Amino acid sequence: MPLDLTASSPDITRAICDVPSESDQETALADLVEQAIGALPHLEVHRDGDTIVARTHLGRAQRVVIAGHIDTVPINANVPTRDIEIDGQSYIWGRGTVDMKAGVAVQLKLAAELVEPAVDITWLWYDHEEVAAELSGLTRLAANRPDLFEGDFAILGEPTAGIVEGGCNGTLRAIVRTKGVRAHSARSWIGENAIHAAAPILARLAEYRPRTISVDGLDYREGLNAVRVTGGVAGNVIPDLCEVEVNFRFAPSRSEEEAVAHVRSVLQGFDVEITDLSGGARPGLDAPLAQDFVRAVGGTPKPKYGWTDVARFSKLGVPAVNYGPGDALLAHHDEERVLVSQIEEVERGLRAWLMTSA
Amino acid sequence: MPLDLTASSPDITRAICDVPSESDQETALADLVEQAIGALPHLEVHRDGDTIVARTHLGRAQRVVIAGHIDTVPINANVPTRDIEIDGQSYIWGRGTVDMKAGVAVQLKLAAELVEPAVDITWLWYDHEEVAAELSGLTRLAANRPDLFEGDFAILGEPTAGIVEGGCNGTLRAIVRTKGVRAHSARSWIGENAIHAAAPILARLAEYRPRTISVDGLDYREGLNAVRVTGGVAGNVIPDLCEVEVNFRFAPSRSEEEAVAHVRSVLQGFDVEITDLSGGARPGLDAPLAQDFVRAVGGTPKPKYGWTDVARFSKLGVPAVNYGPGDALLAHHDEERVLVSQIEEVERGLRAWLMTSA
Repeated sequence: MPLDLTASSPDITRAICDVPSESDQETALADLVEQAIGALPHLEVHRDGDTIVARTHLGRAQRVVIAGHIDTVPINANVPTRDIEIDGQSYIWGRGTVDMKAGVAVQLKLAAELVEPAVDITWLWYDHEEVAAELSGLTRLAANRPDLFEGDFAILGEPTAGIVEGGCNGTLRAIVRTKGVRAHSARSWIGENAIHAAAPILARLAEYRPRTISVDGLDYREGLNAVRVTGGVAGNVIPDLCEVEVNFRFAPSRSEEEAVAHVRSVLQGFDVEITDLSGGARPGLDAPLAQDFVRAVGGTPKPKYGWTDVARFSKLGVPAVNYGPGDALLAHHDEERVLVSQIEEVERGLRAWLMTSA
Repeated sequence: MPLDLTASSPDITRAICDVPSESDQETALADLVEQAIGALPHLEVHRDGDTIVARTHLGRAQRVVIAGHIDTVPINANVPTRDIEIDGQSYIWGRGTVDMKAGVAVQLKLAAELVEPAVDITWLWYDHEEVAAELSGLTRLAANRPDLFEGDFAILGEPTAGIVEGGCNGTLRAIVRTKGVRAHSARSWIGENAIHAAAPILARLAEYRPRTISVDGLDYREGLNAVRVTGGVAGNVIPDLCEVEVNFRFAPSRSEEEAVAHVRSVLQGFDVEITDLSGGARPGLDAPLAQDFVRAVGGTPKPKYGWTDVARFSKLGVPAVNYGPGDALLAHHDEERVLVSQIEEVERGLRAWLMTSA
């Protein structure tokens, strides 16, 4: 059944959640989006894999990019959606309702409705966000059509409970290794225990007091954690290797290089291999268009802790914020559900700004 | 080809090493042993699975049990055996040469040769020693025929380089667990990191100074080690569980209960689950027959660090020692090899004592 973009944004949320689109299986939903958006004469549509780009060309002074990913984490029996009520409030329950098809639904509705917005808009619905960065539709599109990212401001529809969240923390992963010498555990003094040698690594992580760093007026809370530890050969062997995987979430005021240097300094004396590194994004709320946006949608902006694709736009020099319906703590959760009133609120906020912003 | 027990003990070693007998595949070798030993009129032979028991009944005042296992760890391409020379000394190289077919070869040769020993002898060749204790041929035999274990003294032919090694350390395994609360690592302050909580476990193990405890004149060196550590859910999740597997090798003066209490006291405050526990065996060198044996074979007795089946005899009240050719450090090793002169030396030592002991 084709998508009806004249329906309400909650109804569009239900419709697109009920079309499963786990990462790498987005084609059915991308086809529906392309079909519905392609029928609108005020938009120029481009498709790249399962990413759909739709642009106005009204000759406005400024262009805003509004983006959302159409994939979800594994469904785990949480589709089709259902309507539930908690404490007198209406929710849509199911995989993708928070992360982030309610946001996409608002975007689709406004893309169809706003024939003459006050700014030119690039709508961008993309695939493969919930998996490794190199698989992302945005990575592919940036290689094939970098021009489509051009804009003066960008809004990611990631769940922020209808509050503008600026920028995002960066993330770094590293493997910290200790080595030893194998021996039979009945003669342990002949060997060297690599797991025992890892004791100071865990102690330093346990003692570490993460900072909260203010960037452009928003407070970014950091975190340095062991996310995995492995070591051991057999129940009667002194282990010769122990690996601790560490994840550092760092404020956007630190560069990638500074984040690496910080982790190396905390774990000084140990063998540290950086395995993954994505810089954060400054909130960019000092840009006039951003300030105008915050005024229009209301509320007090917050920092975004998780890494999101705003960092891509930030790297390209486009100030970007997160703004969408849904509680981020329920993303990927088996109790994933979105407040219907929040979908409508975000729809109103976006519409108001897009129709009036200079 | 049947076994020729009139051959030299090194030749018998070669012959029985060249019949593969990894644990659970001992039948071919057990058949050969039964056939050769069954032909000797001075021995009463009993077979239980792949365990062969052969006894003299000369009405001697004392009975000695002499035992050896016929299985090996996986062959890993180390069979057939070959003769090599290192620093002018002759070795037989290959799987099982040390652990423990050279010892079994000496036993087979003497079982055939000693028609009228000075003590009654129970020869015991058994299966499934290199795997879980409940699979051992001795466990099965103890259930089916406990009377066959009766004796005044027992000698295990495990590799001791021709030096009497008394008793053995006990061994205990435990899982030490820490728990936490899962959270997204971008909001780590919402969770509790179970891996960080394990820092004091590793620190206590690293700081632990194992004791050396003198038991009946022999010094038993203990050891308390982490042999495995695991924790972690995913690269972006604060882990809610960490497990450290610990192995305690303890002197035979500690009972199993005391060993458990010691580990619990070192790791006080943590959740400790005992998963495996085998008490050690006191050296038993104060028994007159044992002292006589040590005098006859010469050398200064040492403690045995690894757990061996002497502990079974010890539990039954039979003093037991380890005495066999081969360097225990080469057991299970890909460079497993036995000194030919050591095989001959152990053969001479055993023969001299068995022919003259009171």
